[in-house]
Amino acid sequence: MKISAQLIKEIQSHYLEYAQGSLSATGSTPLPPECAKPGSLIYVSSPDQLKTALEIPAGIIVCLKKILKESIELKADQALFLTPAIPAAMALINPLFDTKKSRWPMGIHPSAHISPSAKLGDNVTVSINCVIGDEVIIGENTFIGPNSVVEKGAQIGSSTYLHPSVFIGANCIIGNHCEIHPHTTIGSDGFGYAKDPQTGIAHKIPQLGIVVLEDHVELGANCAIDRATLTETRICSGTKLDNLVHIAHNCVLGKNGFYTAGFMTAGSSEIGANFACGGGVVVADHIKITDNVTLGGRSAVTKDVTESGAYTGYPLEPWREGLRTLANLPNVSEMRKQISEIRKHLGLDKDSP
Amino acid sequence: MKISAQLIKEIQSHYLEYAQGSLSATGSTPLPPECAKPGSLIYVSSPDQLKTALEIPAGIIVCLKKILKESIELKADQALFLTPAIPAAMALINPLFDTKKSRWPMGIHPSAHISPSAKLGDNVTVSINCVIGDEVIIGENTFIGPNSVVEKGAQIGSSTYLHPSVFIGANCIIGNHCEIHPHTTIGSDGFGYAKDPQTGIAHKIPQLGIVVLEDHVELGANCAIDRATLTETRICSGTKLDNLVHIAHNCVLGKNGFYTAGFMTAGSSEIGANFACGGGVVVADHIKITDNVTLGGRSAVTKDVTESGAYTGYPLEPWREGLRTLANLPNVSEMRKQISEIRKHLGLDKDSP
Amino acid sequence: MKISAQLIKEIQSHYLEYAQGSLSATGSTPLPPECAKPGSLIYVSSPDQLKTALEIPAGIIVCLKKILKESIELKADQALFLTPAIPAAMALINPLFDTKKSRWPMGIHPSAHISPSAKLGDNVTVSINCVIGDEVIIGENTFIGPNSVVEKGAQIGSSTYLHPSVFIGANCIIGNHCEIHPHTTIGSDGFGYAKDPQTGIAHKIPQLGIVVLEDHVELGANCAIDRATLTETRICSGTKLDNLVHIAHNCVLGKNGFYTAGFMTAGSSEIGANFACGGGVVVADHIKITDNVTLGGRSAVTKDVTESGAYTGYPLEPWREGLRTLANLPNVSEMRKQISEIRKHLGLDKDSP
Repeated sequence: MKISAQLIKEIQSHYLEYAQGSLSATGSTPLPPECAKPGSLIYVSSPDQLKTALEIPAGIIVCLKKILKESIELKADQALFLTPAIPAAMALINPLFDTKKSRWPMGIHPSAHISPSAKLGDNVTVSINCVIGDEVIIGENTFIGPNSVVEKGAQIGSSTYLHPSVFIGANCIIGNHCEIHPHTTIGSDGFGYAKDPQTGIAHKIPQLGIVVLEDHVELGANCAIDRATLTETRICSGTKLDNLVHIAHNCVLGKNGFYTAGFMTAGSSEIGANFACGGGVVVADHIKITDNVTLGGRSAVTKDVTESGAYTGYPLEPWREGLRTLANLPNVSEMRKQISEIRKHLGLDKDSP
Repeated sequence: MKISAQLIKEIQSHYLEYAQGSLSATGSTPLPPECAKPGSLIYVSSPDQLKTALEIPAGIIVCLKKILKESIELKADQALFLTPAIPAAMALINPLFDTKKSRWPMGIHPSAHISPSAKLGDNVTVSINCVIGDEVIIGENTFIGPNSVVEKGAQIGSSTYLHPSVFIGANCIIGNHCEIHPHTTIGSDGFGYAKDPQTGIAHKIPQLGIVVLEDHVELGANCAIDRATLTETRICSGTKLDNLVHIAHNCVLGKNGFYTAGFMTAGSSEIGANFACGGGVVVADHIKITDNVTLGGRSAVTKDVTESGAYTGYPLEPWREGLRTLANLPNVSEMRKQISEIRKHLGLDKDSP
Repeated sequence: MKISAQLIKEIQSHYLEYAQGSLSATGSTPLPPECAKPGSLIYVSSPDQLKTALEIPAGIIVCLKKILKESIELKADQALFLTPAIPAAMALINPLFDTKKSRWPMGIHPSAHISPSAKLGDNVTVSINCVIGDEVIIGENTFIGPNSVVEKGAQIGSSTYLHPSVFIGANCIIGNHCEIHPHTTIGSDGFGYAKDPQTGIAHKIPQLGIVVLEDHVELGANCAIDRATLTETRICSGTKLDNLVHIAHNCVLGKNGFYTAGFMTAGSSEIGANFACGGGVVVADHIKITDNVTLGGRSAVTKDVTESGAYTGYPLEPWREGLRTLANLPNVSEMRKQISEIRKHLGLDKDSP
């Protein structure tokens, strides 16, 4: 797959600036400098990488602006773009190479089972073996991959992409421009029971609520988002979940959050906007975390977090303190030995029972 | 959806007592007081919530008995019930509002692939695109949701509900009144290999055993329950698993347990009855945990637990001690500093090599 | 199912030695001595188990060589084999009892949706409701279980076994003799975004790379393996993953590794050959772990591991030190008390602010 410099130049963004070279130059699927082929589009973020890209030679070079100290000499069929941030440039250019929409035939596949009461917008794809229940509503340009199941009364917005083998439970609401990866479950029952103290038997509390995903939400693979007991579990706009994330009933995840793999929250917790975390974080139930909080990997939240900032550890501490605690844990054995020596030295060890 | 007070009054339970009002009053789908609509059924557990419910006005009020200090005045089309425990009342009343059985058409769907040698009881639903293997047995009133796969020789009891996209592996046995959520895998192979010390190559030990779920077991979404090496992995009656739980080969989970999200146990461990835990707990292999054990979130079990009670932490400690250790961890940096000062004060720091 | 001693004798391996008895003796599906039936094949690794096996009586006994101190007396229809390692013997003999290949009809099922541009080798099974995309290549003798989805351009080697409900994403490459369990996702997008610091909005970086599984790789159930941003996420030959494992984009897992349940690695990390770990291990991003590293359960890797060996804990320490730290953590409360006493004793507590 090849993209022309002209096409890239047409992207309007202050993150991407055409610098020099032929606009009819083309770049094939981007590869890192160390394994690119002649003609590749190459992102470079160091002078060494730039040198490599010129030697290969790249078809199109997208260069971190601050590393370009002097003008460079391009071949006749090369082009150079500048960016203040490589990830931003990749977010702008890589969609031109994305094959997602061509993986399966577009349109309604004859093998799909679609309830007559479902309402589908224009240009919807319901792919092979999909199952769409009664009264489902699907907005225009939305793509439902093979073997996905959408239960009765669920609503899916427009321009949303469901990969194959996704499950959307009854009455759940998915926004516009969302993306959901395979084997993710939306709308499983919350973990709610009334345990009879006499018999020890757990009686199920049917979970009557729903899950709401606002717009531009992305969920990774093999996640599980539980429906609320009565109301809704909500993931606000722009929030992204990695793989194997568990969100319990009644939780609210604020907008523009990043929830890295293995994140789990217990029921009824509310997390503010712009949250971010490393992998394997857990949050207890009925916790409130304010806006603009960042948590280190493996941290655990058992109390409300009322001030914005970075935290880490279990128990959770402000970032620096948490790192210091972590760094000091391996000293515990030596510390214990030293305390014992001091007590001996002071004769305090004889007081012990 | 509306339910009459009469219907609720017909529920026979000491957890639910008709107090006053019209038996022809109706309540629509329950909502919490703070977001209920006129006519809602409302559960109230505080005087403030009761006031709110009366103002809205609720159709039916289910009130925590101990907060009702004086008689209240109802409108002509309202009814009041009392309960000693709101979750118990929800477990009794919410099933009246549950739409689970109406999400998909009942009966055998023509698109289902059912082996001629499978045996289905009366009133079984095998929904769209299900795949039922040879010699499978399914008990009466059981519901198999769309896209689920049941392999050869598996047995499923009666009145069991498989949500869509569930996998039941060959020869596994599922009891009566079970419920299994989407993308859960029952009967994947145990993680068993014989590693050749010379070559470093791992030779697979085929896992010939099965998984047994006894009656009234519920599994959340995206769980994985491995079949045993030779015999069985067993989940005893009444036990409930949350989402993303992993149970390794040969394990036995005792009856009436609660296994919160992210629970993982390694092979051949046996957990007693009435177990409960917070999220993210791990149990090592060949561990025995006695009956009536509760574990805090994130705790890890690496030794047998022989006495009933509550424990937490890693390493595991009795509940209070575990919480105290956890609370003291952030002091480790300061403690180290103080030890250093003491050693200096005593001239002990000069003895160090 | 019954296997004859003759068939076992024909297995050529220094891990299995025919000792005595009738070669026409048969053993039914292996069971542990404590629950075996007359005629079972029984593996025994202690004198007590041997006694039990003889009493039942077993059809075929496979005995740990070093526990057989004297010759034993067999019945006319029994046979005895010796092995230096029971797991090795199980890896050799249990395949004779494995029913995996007979769970579903072989061949191309008429309900399977196979793109006309897909290329299938000889003797391939594509089972019920499978969906095989354009330009997919599947090698000979490979088995694709019901409801699995293979996207456009993916390649699957020969003699590979995909259980039901597996997802293989576009262009991903699966080797020969691999095995993948249900609800595992291969080729979900890596978790890559460019966050605009002004707006807080995360712009997706389309993930253009692939996942490569080399030969003899086995993945458990409900795993998620992300495709690379530009190049590939690679799992090298002979490596085995347990259930609920997450591998992020651009990672490389070296050959012959064991990744126990709940293992998670963040992006771009490289793990050497012969890695092994307990459950619930996490590895941060851009980490390098050298060959021959073993990690204890629940450990976390946040820095490169440059020397082979065993490590455990968070932070990670060499095995013995890590265990010692862990063992000492419960002393922290008592240590704090003792430090306080010492400071009081020395009058140091008055210096504190």
